[in-house]
Amino acid sequence: MTLTAPGSIQADSTGGRPAHSGPTPVNPARGLVCRNCGTTFGLIAEHACAECFGPLEVDYDPEVMRAVTREQIEAGPQNIWRYVALLPVGHDPASRVSLDPGMTPLVRADRLAAELGLTGGLWVKDDSANPTHSFKDRVVSLAATAAKGLGYSKIAAASTGNLANSVAAHAARVGVPSFVFIPSDLEPGKVVQSAVYGQTLVAVEGSYDDVNRLTSELAETDEFEDTAFVNQNVRPYYAEGSKTVGYEIAEQLGWRIPAQVVIPMASGSLLTKVDKAFRELTAAGIVEATEWTVFGAQSAGCDPIATAFDNGWDVVKPVKPTGIAKSLNIGNPADGPYALDAIRRTGGSVGRVGDEQIVQGIRDLARTTGVFAETAGGVTVAVLRQLVEDGRLDPAKETVVLNTGEGLKTLDPLEPVVGPTHVVEPSLKSVRAAGLIG
Amino acid sequence: MTLTAPGSIQADSTGGRPAHSGPTPVNPARGLVCRNCGTTFGLIAEHACAECFGPLEVDYDPEVMRAVTREQIEAGPQNIWRYVALLPVGHDPASRVSLDPGMTPLVRADRLAAELGLTGGLWVKDDSANPTHSFKDRVVSLAATAAKGLGYSKIAAASTGNLANSVAAHAARVGVPSFVFIPSDLEPGKVVQSAVYGQTLVAVEGSYDDVNRLTSELAETDEFEDTAFVNQNVRPYYAEGSKTVGYEIAEQLGWRIPAQVVIPMASGSLLTKVDKAFRELTAAGIVEATEWTVFGAQSAGCDPIATAFDNGWDVVKPVKPTGIAKSLNIGNPADGPYALDAIRRTGGSVGRVGDEQIVQGIRDLARTTGVFAETAGGVTVAVLRQLVEDGRLDPAKETVVLNTGEGLKTLDPLEPVVGPTHVVEPSLKSVRAAGLIG
Repeated sequence: MTLTAPGSIQADSTGGRPAHSGPTPVNPARGLVCRNCGTTFGLIAEHACAECFGPLEVDYDPEVMRAVTREQIEAGPQNIWRYVALLPVGHDPASRVSLDPGMTPLVRADRLAAELGLTGGLWVKDDSANPTHSFKDRVVSLAATAAKGLGYSKIAAASTGNLANSVAAHAARVGVPSFVFIPSDLEPGKVVQSAVYGQTLVAVEGSYDDVNRLTSELAETDEFEDTAFVNQNVRPYYAEGSKTVGYEIAEQLGWRIPAQVVIPMASGSLLTKVDKAFRELTAAGIVEATEWTVFGAQSAGCDPIATAFDNGWDVVKPVKPTGIAKSLNIGNPADGPYALDAIRRTGGSVGRVGDEQIVQGIRDLARTTGVFAETAGGVTVAVLRQLVEDGRLDPAKETVVLNTGEGLKTLDPLEPVVGPTHVVEPSLKSVRAAGLIG
Repeated sequence: MTLTAPGSIQADSTGGRPAHSGPTPVNPARGLVCRNCGTTFGLIAEHACAECFGPLEVDYDPEVMRAVTREQIEAGPQNIWRYVALLPVGHDPASRVSLDPGMTPLVRADRLAAELGLTGGLWVKDDSANPTHSFKDRVVSLAATAAKGLGYSKIAAASTGNLANSVAAHAARVGVPSFVFIPSDLEPGKVVQSAVYGQTLVAVEGSYDDVNRLTSELAETDEFEDTAFVNQNVRPYYAEGSKTVGYEIAEQLGWRIPAQVVIPMASGSLLTKVDKAFRELTAAGIVEATEWTVFGAQSAGCDPIATAFDNGWDVVKPVKPTGIAKSLNIGNPADGPYALDAIRRTGGSVGRVGDEQIVQGIRDLARTTGVFAETAGGVTVAVLRQLVEDGRLDPAKETVVLNTGEGLKTLDPLEPVVGPTHVVEPSLKSVRAAGLIG
C-alpha cells in the first residue's frame, strides 16, 4: 500500500488548469550524501549516515541545476512547485502530496524601516500566508511527496505546533492516516487547529525534545514501519522545502539576492536552506553573483545557537527551553552547527531577545506593516531592532526579515497587553464621554 | 489632507516588480445609480439616493465592460487588481490602498463530495488565504482606495470582527488613522487581531446592528467629516470588491461559471456580487453563457433572509441575532431583498443550520479537505449538506462553496469538542498503554 492522492490534491492552486505547460523537468537529485563524511547513498528513506551517523542531505547534479532558467521557473504555478527543477521530488504533478503552499507576499516595510533607521530598504517575507499559516507547509509538501514516492502509507511528526497543523491538514486533504505528537503545553490555537482535521493527535507530557526522542524510538518499531516521520526518516527531502523561501525572496525582488536576511532559528535548518538557495541561484546564473549576510534570531528562553555563536563554538550545547516563542523551542538543534557555519561564512551574527521584546516585536510589525506575526515573527523583528542598535546589521543595505507564522496561533501573550482602546454604550453621548469626539 | 500611501503600499504582492505591463485600464465606472429609482449621480461619497433614500451602486458603462478580455486580466498581478478593468477604483497602481488580497485557492473537495453524494464536482473557494484571513480584505481594499481618491484622511468601520481586522491592518500598512467599532462580545481572536495593529478600537456594548446605527450617526458628525466609513459613505465602492470572488472562481475553473454556488449571507451583499460578477463575465463574452444557481446560507440564530425566502416575502423582517456564527450576525441585512432577487431569479434556495450543525460543518470540511474554516464556513458546508439531503441542490451539477474566513478566528466553539486523541508520557511503554502500538 502506498500513499495515494485520489484526485483530491490539486497540482495548482489556481484550480483545474494544468500546473505546467512544458515538459516534466528533470530531477536534479542524484542521491543523498553525508554532510559529515561525504558517503553517498541512493534516494532512500534515511536521515543518518550508515557509516558515521552524520546527517544526510540531498546530493544534486550541479550540471542539471545549472541548466535551470528564470523562464522555466516563471512558467510554473504560483506556488513552491514552480521551483521543482531545483527540488528532489514532485517533478510529475500527479506525484505531489501538497496543499500547494508558497509564493507568499514579500511586503515592503517602509514604516518599520523608518522607525529603525534603515535606509537601504526593508521587506517582510510573510509566510503566514501559507495554507496552514506557517512556513511548515513548504517542508511538509516535500516530505509527504517523498513519502508517497518511497512507498509509505502514513505520515507522522513530532511538532511544536506549526508542523502538527500542516501534517494533519496534508493528511486530511489526501485522506491518509497521520500521527502527530505535540508537547502537551502547546497554545490552544495550535492544538485545536491540529485536532480539527480528525487525525490522530498525541499530546506528550514533556518538552519538544522529549517528543522528538519518543518519535525517534517509535520510528524503529514494527507498528510504524509503514509510516514516514516527516522530520526524521524523510528529513533530507523535508528540509529541502525550506529552500523555496530563498528562491521566492530572490524572484520577488526581481531576481536579486538581498544583502541581509534575518531568520528565526529553532533547529537552524531554515537559515541553512535560505543560504543554500541563494548559492544555488547564483551558481545557476539565475541571479547575479552578489554578497549576502544571514543573521539568526533566537529567544532568550532557548538560545543554544546564540550561545555557541557568542563563544565561538563549532558545536551547540543543548538547553532546556522556556519562554513564549514555543515554535522556536528546540533545545537541541540538529542543524545548529551548519547554521553557525553559514552565519560565520557570510559575516552575520545571532541575536537573542526576551519575552517582552518578542511581544513588542509582534506589535511593532503589526502597527507598521499590517502583518500579524506569531511569537517567532516577534523574535525576528525584535532581533532586527537589536542588530541595528548594536551596529551588527548595516542600515544602508537592503534587508529582508522572515515572518514564519501567523499571529492568530499565539494570541495568549498578547491578550494581557492589547485590547479595545475605548469601551462605549451605543450612543453619541457615550462616545462623546469616552473622548472620541469633542 | 488626503489619504496617503507613502511608498509602503505595494502595487503587487510579488514585490518590487510592476503590477501591470500594459497601459492603465480605462475606468468603466461612470457614476453611481440608485437601485430603487434609477437616479444617477457622479462618483461621489454617498450610499443612499438623495431622491428616495434607496441604495446607490456603481453604474458601469456596458461598452467599456464588454471590451475587457481574458488576456488583459491574465496579464495582471496575482491578486484582485488583475480585475481592475471591471472595478470602479484603483486603475493607477499608485492610487491603491491595499494589502493586495485575492487569487485565493479554489480547492478541489473530492472527499467531501463523495461523503455528500455529489457527483458533479465540488470545490471550496478558500478566502481564509487572504492577508487578514477573510474575504473582507477584498472590500476594504476597494473602500480604502476609493476613500483616498475622494479625499478622506481616515477610515472607519462597524464590524462583526473580520472587517475590523482588515480595516485596522490596511490602516497600519499605509499609516493612516482608523476607527473600528465592534460589539463588545466578539471572539477573543478577532479582538486581539484588530487591537494588535495599534489603531483605535472601540468596543460597543450592544449588537452589530447597534454598532451600525452608532456609526451611521457618527458619520454625520463634524468630527468624522474627514473619515470614510468603509461600509457606509463609501459602501458602493466597498461592495464591488466582492465581485472579485466571482471573477476568480470563473477564471480558476478555466473561464467557466459553475452550475451551483453556496454562499453565506450576513448583509446579503456577497451573494449579490458573485451573481453580478457572473453576469458581467457573460455579458463581456469572457465566459460562455451558461446557467447558474446561487444558494444562500444562514445560521438558525440569524435567519431573516431565510425566513423571507420561505415565506415568499420581498422584504426582510429584522431579527435579533444569536448563535456562534458571529460574523453572519446581521439581523437587519441591507442587501437582503437583492439577495432574494438573485436567489429566486437563478432558481436557488436558502438553508439555515443550528450551532451544532455549524461545528460539524467546520469539522467535516477540515477532515475531508484540510481547510479550517471559521463558523461562517461551517454554516456554508452544513447548509450544503442540508440542500443535498433536501434535494434542493442537484448532486450531478458542479458546485462551489465559499469559505469566507479562517478557523483560527473562532476557536471557542471547537475547544469543547476537539483535542488530542491520546495523552501519553514520553515513553514507548506509555504509547503502548495508550493503544497506539501493540
